[in-house]
Amino acid sequence: MLIREATPEDWPTIWPFFHEIVAAGETLTYPTGLAVDDAKDWWYQTPPNRTVVAVNEHSTILGTAKMNRNHMGNGAHVASATYLVDPAHSGQGVGRALVEYSVEWARAAGYRLMQFNAVVETNIHAIALYQSIGFRIGGTLPEGFHHPTQGYVGLHMMYRPL
Amino acid sequence: MLIREATPEDWPTIWPFFHEIVAAGETLTYPTGLAVDDAKDWWYQTPPNRTVVAVNEHSTILGTAKMNRNHMGNGAHVASATYLVDPAHSGQGVGRALVEYSVEWARAAGYRLMQFNAVVETNIHAIALYQSIGFRIGGTLPEGFHHPTQGYVGLHMMYRPL
Repeated sequence: MLIREATPEDWPTIWPFFHEIVAAGETLTYPTGLAVDDAKDWWYQTPPNRTVVAVNEHSTILGTAKMNRNHMGNGAHVASATYLVDPAHSGQGVGRALVEYSVEWARAAGYRLMQFNAVVETNIHAIALYQSIGFRIGGTLPEGFHHPTQGYVGLHMMYRPL
Repeated sequence: MLIREATPEDWPTIWPFFHEIVAAGETLTYPTGLAVDDAKDWWYQTPPNRTVVAVNEHSTILGTAKMNRNHMGNGAHVASATYLVDPAHSGQGVGRALVEYSVEWARAAGYRLMQFNAVVETNIHAIALYQSIGFRIGGTLPEGFHHPTQGYVGLHMMYRPL
């Protein structure tokens, strides 16, 4: 697996699984009805923030991540990231590779912390993955997320020092 | 004290204390070097979000607040707000009036929760005020804020149901 910068030409391949995951509305606090061009603007970051894709040996895109500053001013040492794995390629370690890559990026870029602002508490596979990579639950907003089938559930804030 | 919509004409009065508070860098995760026009764009919200001012019986501006949606999609029922009180008018209940106003706004606008993403843990007067109005500390990002004199301190996430 290789992780490389996302290019505009990757978007038609990212969009179907981006849309599938976002429209499902189970894991992200994103507008569920984002149109294709708005979604691209949303996902593609401007430097020094980054958007990357994970590809396999056939150059198939398996997943994507965006990595960005999370606070400004005197919180500018805190980074964040978001990850999307194509469900067609789940269970292959793509998420883990993207999370680990983003941690390395944040460390190399001089950040002191990574923080996830809104991890849906029913997204237990993601939470377990983050915890296995050193992230902790720093707090929870009870009923912060309206899950389409489970009703109001909490949003965790998670973080790890770098 | 009256709380009303902020107008463009209010900005020259808001800007000096906005700048004083933001440049001090002790309480907000804002870029500390915001220029006057960028700061106005930053502070003034577009509907349905709002920016208001608190004024006294002489129409003197005492403080200001912005109130906004805090998450999108299935987190769209969570509001947030930020408050700035002119230090020349501190100790007169301006902060309390603005917080209470924003809670009423959020409730009336149909939000279920209010959340503050980044309350600097050394900002003890603000934290005590928020707690007296029903907000709780939902978690803390250790070392999330680089205080200019106290070094790395935590950022609290605070919230209250509406």
